[in-house]
Amino acid sequence: MIIDCHGHYTTSPPQHREFREAQLAWLDDPSGPAPERPDIGDDVIRATIENGQLKVMRERGGDLTVISPQASAMAHHVPDPGVAREWAQACNDLIHRVTGLFPEHFAGVCQLPQTPGGGLDDVTAELRRCVEELGFVGCNLNPDPSGGHWTSPPLTDPYWYPLYETMTELDVPAMVHVSQSCNPAFHTLGAHYLNADTSVFMQLVETDLFDRFPTLRFVIPHGGGAVPYHWGRYRGLAVRMGRPDPTERLLDNVFFDSCVYHQPGMNLLLDVVPRDNVLFASEMLGAVRGDNPDTGASWDDTKRYIDRADLPGADRDKIFETNARRVYPRLDARLKAEGR
Amino acid sequence: MIIDCHGHYTTSPPQHREFREAQLAWLDDPSGPAPERPDIGDDVIRATIENGQLKVMRERGGDLTVISPQASAMAHHVPDPGVAREWAQACNDLIHRVTGLFPEHFAGVCQLPQTPGGGLDDVTAELRRCVEELGFVGCNLNPDPSGGHWTSPPLTDPYWYPLYETMTELDVPAMVHVSQSCNPAFHTLGAHYLNADTSVFMQLVETDLFDRFPTLRFVIPHGGGAVPYHWGRYRGLAVRMGRPDPTERLLDNVFFDSCVYHQPGMNLLLDVVPRDNVLFASEMLGAVRGDNPDTGASWDDTKRYIDRADLPGADRDKIFETNARRVYPRLDARLKAEGR
Repeated sequence: MIIDCHGHYTTSPPQHREFREAQLAWLDDPSGPAPERPDIGDDVIRATIENGQLKVMRERGGDLTVISPQASAMAHHVPDPGVAREWAQACNDLIHRVTGLFPEHFAGVCQLPQTPGGGLDDVTAELRRCVEELGFVGCNLNPDPSGGHWTSPPLTDPYWYPLYETMTELDVPAMVHVSQSCNPAFHTLGAHYLNADTSVFMQLVETDLFDRFPTLRFVIPHGGGAVPYHWGRYRGLAVRMGRPDPTERLLDNVFFDSCVYHQPGMNLLLDVVPRDNVLFASEMLGAVRGDNPDTGASWDDTKRYIDRADLPGADRDKIFETNARRVYPRLDARLKAEGR
Repeated sequence: MIIDCHGHYTTSPPQHREFREAQLAWLDDPSGPAPERPDIGDDVIRATIENGQLKVMRERGGDLTVISPQASAMAHHVPDPGVAREWAQACNDLIHRVTGLFPEHFAGVCQLPQTPGGGLDDVTAELRRCVEELGFVGCNLNPDPSGGHWTSPPLTDPYWYPLYETMTELDVPAMVHVSQSCNPAFHTLGAHYLNADTSVFMQLVETDLFDRFPTLRFVIPHGGGAVPYHWGRYRGLAVRMGRPDPTERLLDNVFFDSCVYHQPGMNLLLDVVPRDNVLFASEMLGAVRGDNPDTGASWDDTKRYIDRADLPGADRDKIFETNARRVYPRLDARLKAEGR
């Protein structure tokens, strides 16, 4: 089967977006009652998926997408902890509705109620709720809740350990994924996302985080930012710094998704990153929509690029299925229970 | 001939570094006299180059390096304008000593006395001094003088126009190059440098800066950060944003150096970026030193990767020489005057 490990519910119903707007308006003027979550009918949710992600999956040949709330809308820069908690719960409950309506095709990954500099109690509680009560298989972890000001400590800092302890206990990975940029220097989709991927990889090169958390697993999205393109730079830098070669040290714990939107980039990813460490993903419907005028194919039809890379069958199976089942063991367990 | 467009004087004499330390100490306690620049003998400078950059150029087969002060030591985050001016002048004067001692092998590119949020009068004055009095052929422009806090406006903001007017008048390009990171989230060499390259390219995608400055030229170092690896992402994003395809719009003004430290990365760069837009560079002696254990060759021997890419002769000439002569016309004029 073909598992896409990186999808977002970018087609969420307008009622959900209106709730968010009302929530932010209420933050500005809390004199009235806090807004209540909207009633959204199953048919509304079903239509957004059937005409969106599922339609594209069927066209391209995907079986299951690991779906999470829209990343750019997580907006962890909004500092109110109550609003962050309520917004994350609303987003995650909506993902749960999607996975309930289409259990064959979607598994949930949760948004965490992070805030800049905030404590992690709400974060770990929401992760636990989503995994234990809603059946989610992972989380998205934002290394920069400030939204482009990078005021939080590196992901290797003890600040984050309570989350890692919960992730380890629940045996779920995190995709490292920032949200919208509030810094005009960084375009959200064209700079901030990729910079975060690059920065976090280097944070991991610098430290021994996985000595402390040997089963902790991170998926670095967007093909790993700049990392595979600069694979030699990272190997050389690590040696110069007296650190282990990342090609040996990090690969039990760090994985790259395949959201690279042209054939040469995909070829590079598959050439330099060990194939045990690449997970198929398209981030569909995501940052880049539309077709490459040179090929007529969708930019984000990453399956097409992998197909054309002409890998041995065993490597294809890893990238399309078995790596994801290994990194997301709760997904694997669910699929096995379903006989898949 | 083979022109390396990206070298730094990372082997500068200890007296120069001691002057900087004294300068920073004086900033902390300005009760005594300001430190004076050291006398450094020609033989000292000659030795640093002959045993450093020039030795490696001879080993690898390079003819001329466009050399600038050590990038990580520019330290534009230090906010005192007088100290920034004095430090930039000291660094640039030292580069001028190098180019005077080895005119056959080096051409100068200057450090600008930038400060976070500071005015650009000193910046344009120092650029003019270096070009008109010292014979420099370009400058390094730091898009983030804060050193990892990204508090300056994007390079497309009118804030920067006075510099662009001077660059245009003098007909010199800028290499977009940050300095050391003061933000623990960003490793200087493994994240901050690459993030800056990526971010600035996207700033340029977003705007029509080159309508206003049609002859302005930027060299984006480190192989363009994440950009060539995500070439499809940028093309698709631009179309989605209603912007021109960057492969058509930006290539009269934006160039990528070849500081990519492994063969697959170099192959990708040469595959996706038009060969009129790639300039040979190694950043030697720079971020990554030492040898790839798999090949026994130096990580930053980028000439080796280009040689092995087996390009047609005309494309090799562009990348090794003629693109640099086009982007740095003052270098071309000097070489022509020397009959080279």
